[in-house]
Amino acid sequence: MIVAVRKNKLPALTERRYNSQNNMSVLIVGSTALDSIKTPRAENPRLLGGSASHAAVAASFFSPVKLVGVVGEDFPKKYLELYRRHKIDLEGLQILPGKTFHWSGEYEVNMNNRRTLLTELGVFETFTPTLPEPHRDSQFVLLANIAPALQSHVLDQMRRPKFVVADTMDLWLNIALPDLLKLLKRLDGFVLNDSEAHQLTKEDNLFTALKKIHKLGPKYVIIKKGSHGSILSGPRGYFICPAYPLSKVVDPTGAGDSFVGGMMGRLAAAKGSIEDNLRRAMIYGSVTASFCCEGFGLTRTTKTKLAQIDRRVKELEKLTRF
Amino acid sequence: MIVAVRKNKLPALTERRYNSQNNMSVLIVGSTALDSIKTPRAENPRLLGGSASHAAVAASFFSPVKLVGVVGEDFPKKYLELYRRHKIDLEGLQILPGKTFHWSGEYEVNMNNRRTLLTELGVFETFTPTLPEPHRDSQFVLLANIAPALQSHVLDQMRRPKFVVADTMDLWLNIALPDLLKLLKRLDGFVLNDSEAHQLTKEDNLFTALKKIHKLGPKYVIIKKGSHGSILSGPRGYFICPAYPLSKVVDPTGAGDSFVGGMMGRLAAAKGSIEDNLRRAMIYGSVTASFCCEGFGLTRTTKTKLAQIDRRVKELEKLTRF
Repeated sequence: MIVAVRKNKLPALTERRYNSQNNMSVLIVGSTALDSIKTPRAENPRLLGGSASHAAVAASFFSPVKLVGVVGEDFPKKYLELYRRHKIDLEGLQILPGKTFHWSGEYEVNMNNRRTLLTELGVFETFTPTLPEPHRDSQFVLLANIAPALQSHVLDQMRRPKFVVADTMDLWLNIALPDLLKLLKRLDGFVLNDSEAHQLTKEDNLFTALKKIHKLGPKYVIIKKGSHGSILSGPRGYFICPAYPLSKVVDPTGAGDSFVGGMMGRLAAAKGSIEDNLRRAMIYGSVTASFCCEGFGLTRTTKTKLAQIDRRVKELEKLTRF
Repeated sequence: MIVAVRKNKLPALTERRYNSQNNMSVLIVGSTALDSIKTPRAENPRLLGGSASHAAVAASFFSPVKLVGVVGEDFPKKYLELYRRHKIDLEGLQILPGKTFHWSGEYEVNMNNRRTLLTELGVFETFTPTLPEPHRDSQFVLLANIAPALQSHVLDQMRRPKFVVADTMDLWLNIALPDLLKLLKRLDGFVLNDSEAHQLTKEDNLFTALKKIHKLGPKYVIIKKGSHGSILSGPRGYFICPAYPLSKVVDPTGAGDSFVGGMMGRLAAAKGSIEDNLRRAMIYGSVTASFCCEGFGLTRTTKTKLAQIDRRVKELEKLTRF
């Protein structure tokens, strides 16, 4: 039984949406999960989580979003409502008999080290992302973190995407490297964190690692460095993208997904070439991720107004000028 | 016996000196040492090292420098010549009977972890920095890394310095914290690395740590993050200072000293207020430090031309623009 959830019928929250010059939508595929997150100070059971949830909400500030994922019958209605409030197209969200993917993790005092307490795949175990017909013409495609074979399977269904970016995680480097290497040849952009870049290339130096990753396929490579920001490498050279200064990090879960989601949303909304817009799009992604870190799960991100994002972008301009 | 070595009589290397608008000199006190540095690929015995050596050479690109330190009779003449080529005023350099401070260390493959193999204090054990009369009127004072009691002793001898900055290291946090806390109340600027900031404040969050350090005295606090750049906190808020991208790090020893030395040299050379010039001065420090990392000890820094520094500063402008 597949229950296709139809599009949002709620009134549009136009004040939340970027005044798109382009109005391209972003197709986002990834995990849609329930996250139970423990920190030394608090315990938060069954928050909305997953790479696609974080990326989709982040992208939704700037562009229309089509979400592709799977949840079980236990998936709370309030989370479907949350997606809808962000005007996220749910036609590609499968609701299957069984349980929603459930992840449980614990952070240490300094919020840098995380350990997984429990992973229940549920309906995710047999997930095959199948794109509704209109999704296949999407121009901007974000393959958020899921198994690289599934990311490739989504690409197989696309017609002529303009810009395809994938994120990944250490797990796939460990257990699905051949699949990931196949995927890399088909990407425009690849996003990974510094320890994954090291694992993939066996290089300690980030800039040497970047050169090696380009040779695996992607024209644009972005290495995320958490609170140290990120580095883009592309045809116009490097871009050193700062993180927004936060004096309190409540929960960094999903920050990387928010970064790449915000970036893709902003990119799809911009006029002109990818090359011209990518740096600024990364800044928007970085700022969206900063809000993500200020609350558990998506609780802070979903309360964010576009004006607050714009304000932090302006602040980052000032914080980096010399 | 104190042999005071007189000023440089060699012809001025004007092409190496920044076209100073201000011509303020920088007084730099710190360690002057011989460093034996082992890496997985090479062994380099008795290189010129020490916090004051690195800082003085870095500052010398931009401003006249007065060095205050101590060496033994074994100190190679070629290193005195090196200081002189950089037009470093050596009137405050004591040459005492005994051996020069000798440090020996080893880097691991990734160049991030260093362990000390040997420390022979030599003449440094009883070093008391005594300033020649004209030095006491210096406007820009850099207390490079030595014991905080000695840094304070230098300050005791100064008349009306305009801008006093100190660097430190984990050792002093461990064995001389009360001295360091006394010093902090007398500083305009304090420079330390991220792990030292954590050690000093017990704060994991960098921006919270910065706030706590301001309460200890300094108006300006700079936290160094190695290849991730540095963060300034001051009356105009934060500045996120990038590191110059290097695809090969040969030897990071002295990079932090080069950073703060280059910064102070550039600051002393600039017209206008500290506040107006500090960000750009940090960028110059960051670039000077990048050259330091590209060779063992001071071998690369001393070969650097001012035009090469200017070129990397321009590149950093491009690498951070959005």
